[in-house]
Amino acid sequence: MGGEISLEELQLAARNHGLPLEALRWDLTPVGLHYLLIHYDIPEVDPAAWRLELDGLVGAPLSLSLDELRARPAREVVATMECAGNGRALLEPHVVSQPWLLEAVGTARWRGVPLRSLLDEAGAAEAAVEVLFTGLDRGVEGEEEQDYARSLPLDDALHEDVLLAYEVNGVPLPPQHGFPLRLLVPGWYGMTSVKWLARVTVLAEPFDGYQQRRSYRLRREEDEEGIPVDRIQVRALMIPPGIPEFATRARVVRAGEHVLEGRAWSGEAEVAGVEVSDDGGVTWAEAELGPAALGRWAWRTWRCTWDARPGERELCCRARDESGTVQPLEPPWNLGGYANNAVQRVAVTVVE
Amino acid sequence: MGGEISLEELQLAARNHGLPLEALRWDLTPVGLHYLLIHYDIPEVDPAAWRLELDGLVGAPLSLSLDELRARPAREVVATMECAGNGRALLEPHVVSQPWLLEAVGTARWRGVPLRSLLDEAGAAEAAVEVLFTGLDRGVEGEEEQDYARSLPLDDALHEDVLLAYEVNGVPLPPQHGFPLRLLVPGWYGMTSVKWLARVTVLAEPFDGYQQRRSYRLRREEDEEGIPVDRIQVRALMIPPGIPEFATRARVVRAGEHVLEGRAWSGEAEVAGVEVSDDGGVTWAEAELGPAALGRWAWRTWRCTWDARPGERELCCRARDESGTVQPLEPPWNLGGYANNAVQRVAVTVVE
Repeated sequence: MGGEISLEELQLAARNHGLPLEALRWDLTPVGLHYLLIHYDIPEVDPAAWRLELDGLVGAPLSLSLDELRARPAREVVATMECAGNGRALLEPHVVSQPWLLEAVGTARWRGVPLRSLLDEAGAAEAAVEVLFTGLDRGVEGEEEQDYARSLPLDDALHEDVLLAYEVNGVPLPPQHGFPLRLLVPGWYGMTSVKWLARVTVLAEPFDGYQQRRSYRLRREEDEEGIPVDRIQVRALMIPPGIPEFATRARVVRAGEHVLEGRAWSGEAEVAGVEVSDDGGVTWAEAELGPAALGRWAWRTWRCTWDARPGERELCCRARDESGTVQPLEPPWNLGGYANNAVQRVAVTVVE
Repeated sequence: MGGEISLEELQLAARNHGLPLEALRWDLTPVGLHYLLIHYDIPEVDPAAWRLELDGLVGAPLSLSLDELRARPAREVVATMECAGNGRALLEPHVVSQPWLLEAVGTARWRGVPLRSLLDEAGAAEAAVEVLFTGLDRGVEGEEEQDYARSLPLDDALHEDVLLAYEVNGVPLPPQHGFPLRLLVPGWYGMTSVKWLARVTVLAEPFDGYQQRRSYRLRREEDEEGIPVDRIQVRALMIPPGIPEFATRARVVRAGEHVLEGRAWSGEAEVAGVEVSDDGGVTWAEAELGPAALGRWAWRTWRCTWDARPGERELCCRARDESGTVQPLEPPWNLGGYANNAVQRVAVTVVE
């Protein structure tokens, strides 16, 4: 591998946790292995004093305690969440930001109040076009001091699976996942699911804050308006087979028959299939795709048998979805380093 | 900051999680924020089939299920654990391995069976000198294929606070912390506390496996025998004040009076005091050291008020312990990049 990253980027990599790829083996990612991207600092929240404010273009603003939210009818959604910057460190030219390789993903069972039920309760006005979500995490970005804030078009916000979540995998949110309450928008890249939620505001105009107008847009030049990043692009990842060398993470595999396994997901459409290559993507074989056992928004298993012949091999996997999208062999470059869903490549040495 | 790291080192940084420094605010580190250093892959363990073997130079070897271990008298210890490689990425010349900055630390309440009680039960022979701990994690390091394994001198292994731990912070060990059982040696750097424990072997001779003989030794040249790395050196860290800039993590603080807070610990001896500087270590003021409320092996709080005057400031903190050791201003270099406990430096811009 070529490329180098600075100590400033390393500071981000040391804070923002990735999924070790062997953890793809679990349907639900154990807490502590799910990826985390925290723009500023994890805020300290006193749950007794905390309230969610729901205001803006509504008939009756709401101000709710955590107990009041927990007393309302709840819904659970299993969702695979991925960072929009996953794959960024593999791009050339180099893009400076959180340097993810492939590991910015995780799947969890989130429980909370459907946002729609609260918007119904407050009575969103006819003129509403977007809903803005503001977190308690504060910092500086693009020379603007800001609370982290992102919006959703009203139609997307009204989807029945959009939750204000207070539990993950059966326990209260840990601090790093947004305690006491976070937004969860299944199928969208993770920046959408605002953590440490303080305020939900119904808007008559599209939000033009930093995280919407300047960040999280696909563009090749600074002065382009660009296309907003939204739904998760199709991707498959494999559990690297064999055993690793400590410093290089190079894999050693015994010759013979192996089962290759992994997960595939897409926020755009249902996953349609996964192929596997052991020659760096020259030839491909279809893998067996598991059922959508965890629901529409979660990753699916895939597996195939692989006859490992001695020598140097490059394993790849690529998924496609029902929208017709196939993972590219080469990464699509953009200025922010977003939505790089190029195929994973795992170099292995097969030994007798 | 100068220096760059390779994509191979980034692979390690993406897998091995650090503590975001604002998480120093919690006495016990929330699961998922405690540092993790995993040499190879997280192994998959079937707890129903798993057994701990205790053998070697004993009168009666033991083979115990998890239920049998949990049925024995238990002990709890709160311990601050730190990676021996913490601070490595700040060394010059550069040392290639897991590139920690300052964040390879965490504190947890561990519950398990005192190792001593099992050694008593099995009856360690008179000739015993060491106890070897072998994990289920397998990989290649220094061109040797190996199960991760480290030993302890018998006297250290018999300390009443050395546990075979099956719970952390009141829950079963998560996979990444060694499920179903790990060693916990309070006061020693983390490599000692072998995870995914499979076997405990009483030895008549010192163990000379890779992790003992070649790795984790303080030396400046490859052909030196070196000094084994063992107990955690004294260190203080602060919660960086103010708010961060996203990409650089640079801090902005409002002028006026602030409370600076952090934690201090030492495996060698009791922490004796902490000093703070806001001019890069030219002048120092004594901080108020909190009580050893979590026991001998855990970090202690410290705090001091700081009158932040506008301009560029460099905050530092340094601890000393009862052995007379004070944190150095410049890092002590060695070939493996171990035990770098040089003072933390936090650049802040104080604005009106």
